[in-house]
Amino acid sequence: MDNLMHAIETQGKALDSDVLLVDSFLNHQVDVSIMEEAGETFAKAFAGVKIDRVATIESSGIAPAAFTARALGVPLVIMKKQTSRIMTGEAVHVPVRSFTKGTVYELMCKKAFLPEGDSVLFIDDFLASGEAAFGAMKIFEMCGCQLAGIGILIEKSFQAGREKLQEKGIRTVSLARVASMETGHVSFLPADA
Amino acid sequence: MDNLMHAIETQGKALDSDVLLVDSFLNHQVDVSIMEEAGETFAKAFAGVKIDRVATIESSGIAPAAFTARALGVPLVIMKKQTSRIMTGEAVHVPVRSFTKGTVYELMCKKAFLPEGDSVLFIDDFLASGEAAFGAMKIFEMCGCQLAGIGILIEKSFQAGREKLQEKGIRTVSLARVASMETGHVSFLPADA
Repeated sequence: MDNLMHAIETQGKALDSDVLLVDSFLNHQVDVSIMEEAGETFAKAFAGVKIDRVATIESSGIAPAAFTARALGVPLVIMKKQTSRIMTGEAVHVPVRSFTKGTVYELMCKKAFLPEGDSVLFIDDFLASGEAAFGAMKIFEMCGCQLAGIGILIEKSFQAGREKLQEKGIRTVSLARVASMETGHVSFLPADA
Repeated sequence: MDNLMHAIETQGKALDSDVLLVDSFLNHQVDVSIMEEAGETFAKAFAGVKIDRVATIESSGIAPAAFTARALGVPLVIMKKQTSRIMTGEAVHVPVRSFTKGTVYELMCKKAFLPEGDSVLFIDDFLASGEAAFGAMKIFEMCGCQLAGIGILIEKSFQAGREKLQEKGIRTVSLARVASMETGHVSFLPADA
């Protein structure tokens, strides 16, 4: 995923040592060719692993997760950050702290869309402290699903998320691994795929 | 888009004469093959029209809009329903009433991602009263963009949105046109594409 790393280097804005702004190609304006390549790269990286569905969290994960689901030929499940007025059916809820926004949101999924025994590949745009990934994993567990693995576009390797997932033996494929950031500069670790 | 209409008929749930629940294939669990077909159908329907970018509103519009942008080879712009803590740069805001949720949200887009003079194709999952479409059009106007047209997955033809757009001479392509709904039954008008 040289295209992703090139976009981070040329268009990403490290606002400080923690916050990386990627809204010109990832989560506000979207370079769809990078999302499609990400989806195909995740599908290749997890080839041979049983995957019944792809899951992500609204809304920045949807584009890369949709292309991953398409490449794998499985349904996509979008976990919601809030309940809708027209939501019906039994749902599971987990509180998740948002690193970026400094708030707590309720992550929600209908149980019917994560059938017991299914193997789920979780796709997200960022991995930082791992709060979202662990929230998603809790949802899968509550629904009786197995985690097939995790695919991440941009990992902030200087935060604890990756290590916490490794300690649990969870295979995480990050397409860009940011070693460190300072205002105006980003340096990388070797990517997973 | 027989596949979309078939999904509405077999999986959609008309909760009453106004609310159509499509969360098993469109906005919670997503049938990605339908989204890809929708994207390709919009691209064909608007072939020959100048389109510089596709825009949608988070989060249910993202999957079909991403496949439309890919089919057209242009960037996708995701208009946000709230401002982010890390949003920087000049942005435009328009209040929009959500028909489904009965609330008002702030639709927001960075001006940099809707460059003046660009021609924008707006894609959304539903067209009902037209509030979201007119909010999006106001955003495009504030940024100096032209509207290339509107692509809708499911139009509630018994509501006023389509007629209001037609009165303004806006080309709207709806892949499924719901003539009426009652609990447990949906009937259609002929689709646009």
